[in-house]
Amino acid sequence: MSLDSFHAVIPAGGAGTRLWPLSRASRPKFLLDLDGSGRSLLQQTWDRLLDLIPAERIHVVTGVAHAAAIKEQLPDLTGLFIEPSPRDSMPAIGLAAAVIGAGDPEAVIGSFAADHIIDDQIAFAEAIEQAVAAAGRGLISTIGITPTGPSTAFGYIESGELLGIDGATSARAVTRFVEKPDAATALAYVADGNHSWNGGMFVTRTDTLLGHLARLQPGLHDGLMRIADAWAGDDRQTVLDEVWPTLTRIAIDHAIAEPVSLEGGIAVVPGAFAWDDIGDFAALQDVGAASSPSTVWVDADGLAIAEDGTTIAVVGLHDVVVVRTADAVLVTTREHAQRVKEVPATLRDRGRDDLV
Amino acid sequence: MSLDSFHAVIPAGGAGTRLWPLSRASRPKFLLDLDGSGRSLLQQTWDRLLDLIPAERIHVVTGVAHAAAIKEQLPDLTGLFIEPSPRDSMPAIGLAAAVIGAGDPEAVIGSFAADHIIDDQIAFAEAIEQAVAAAGRGLISTIGITPTGPSTAFGYIESGELLGIDGATSARAVTRFVEKPDAATALAYVADGNHSWNGGMFVTRTDTLLGHLARLQPGLHDGLMRIADAWAGDDRQTVLDEVWPTLTRIAIDHAIAEPVSLEGGIAVVPGAFAWDDIGDFAALQDVGAASSPSTVWVDADGLAIAEDGTTIAVVGLHDVVVVRTADAVLVTTREHAQRVKEVPATLRDRGRDDLV
Repeated sequence: MSLDSFHAVIPAGGAGTRLWPLSRASRPKFLLDLDGSGRSLLQQTWDRLLDLIPAERIHVVTGVAHAAAIKEQLPDLTGLFIEPSPRDSMPAIGLAAAVIGAGDPEAVIGSFAADHIIDDQIAFAEAIEQAVAAAGRGLISTIGITPTGPSTAFGYIESGELLGIDGATSARAVTRFVEKPDAATALAYVADGNHSWNGGMFVTRTDTLLGHLARLQPGLHDGLMRIADAWAGDDRQTVLDEVWPTLTRIAIDHAIAEPVSLEGGIAVVPGAFAWDDIGDFAALQDVGAASSPSTVWVDADGLAIAEDGTTIAVVGLHDVVVVRTADAVLVTTREHAQRVKEVPATLRDRGRDDLV
Repeated sequence: MSLDSFHAVIPAGGAGTRLWPLSRASRPKFLLDLDGSGRSLLQQTWDRLLDLIPAERIHVVTGVAHAAAIKEQLPDLTGLFIEPSPRDSMPAIGLAAAVIGAGDPEAVIGSFAADHIIDDQIAFAEAIEQAVAAAGRGLISTIGITPTGPSTAFGYIESGELLGIDGATSARAVTRFVEKPDAATALAYVADGNHSWNGGMFVTRTDTLLGHLARLQPGLHDGLMRIADAWAGDDRQTVLDEVWPTLTRIAIDHAIAEPVSLEGGIAVVPGAFAWDDIGDFAALQDVGAASSPSTVWVDADGLAIAEDGTTIAVVGLHDVVVVRTADAVLVTTREHAQRVKEVPATLRDRGRDDLV
């Protein structure tokens, strides 16, 4: 299957509040080199896609606040969509679909979060090729990541019958998307072999996506088409500023993926690669983030990151997480890593937006 | 009992390694305002003694490294003894005793650590008066602090019969000094009413102390007398530099207090005041040190101090201790507070003397 008309769309938003104080509203997770690779998560996403398609077909959708930083991190990026305000993932991906589809009606787009880690490029490329093949049949494809354990941190995709698609021999129908499960349910999911992790990757022809949108979210569809019609003209910004604030705030999962899965319109292809959304500091440690070398551990272990190069010492605590930035220190444990998001929430309540 | 010939000697040494990173070799515990009172522990010790005797009779013994900082903190100090190198408490107190005794053979000296906290000035003064009265009889007096609980962090003084001394009606003979006990022993000590905490305060006529020293540590005694003889002359520094490095390194507890107690030469008078040596961060919290007001606690509690005014956030940890300075972070728990001293030891091993 050819990727000649395949475009990638990277919605780059979300602060990553569970990675505070590394991740901030002004310096979100996707702009950070969290795994010490020398490339930010966004740059790694870009690199992964650039291995498959030319830079001209990789698009980023982001807010005004991060446009400059993204341009700096991705100097070869030509397709930057700047949202006047955050309206969640459906308007972001829908805008890209409408604009790309106007230029190339045969185009297939794939959306890829800016802040995920994928380890096996060959397996990633294989999954994309199958997903694009299934999308050619008018399905919306998603990539179901092969679970490495009964994680309760991710949503799951339940798969049904094999669809028998040329070039997508592993594609199955999605019977439903399920939210983050409890531990017992996760264990059952992994055991039955019919569930994979939902990495939020969707691959679809633009006409397929826009068709579903016209039916399921007609107001949103019409707004996006108005913007797309004006995109090439002089009044792009005027129309964008006028229409954008009226668009429904909704995630693509709720707007399209879940309802269409119930109609049999979603295919899942296996993604047999290491993947993580680095949702919290426990996940960051799991993907191999190392403690600062100057850390002193006395009867202690965990993850200790001193962003400013100072020395962290831990005495008598295990599975601890300590993060120091120029203006803050976080101390927690792997077990409580998900609750870190309560810290920026508390700081915001106290009027300390400078720390959020 | 008059305090007219009473002199106070404050040995100001010891880094306080269990209070790292607040306390450093270059900025030891006694120079710090640890309880937020606005006065360092040394200044509080000075204030407490100045309430009893004039500044001219309050002496400080310290090393070269801290002389300037001490002069700055105590502008009215006239009696500063500067040791060429640290030789533990017996040479420090012995030097002061020899020099003061040369000027005033009737003088009684009391030694008081520079880094302890005492809360009740009236009870402190009462204890000093009784100790000085007993010292007038040729005894070495110590103040036995009334325990507020079965602490395992302090040494204990076992007391025997009442000595029946005028002006020191509560003075008893010390039968022995005991090291920090285990929990069961501490409980028994507190229950029997014959044990008090050893705050390391000794009150003695200079001739009494020097007499014991001549007998028990003759080499040390002779060295100190040589220095004292030269003290008022032009060759003070020459003799000090020559003799000091030859003096036995020993604590007054081992050199004098323990052996003399076995001979019946030590009296203990009760100190019915709140006292603490702030030996670690648990003790610091117990004496009322407050967390930085900007701290964010999420299902967490303990002591969090950001010396540089930044924000500390703790999620899901209880009885935790977090201390941030410009160059370091310490994370531990109350339970492990005594082991903090292993951190500067490790840093020294790594050649990071800049952090110690």
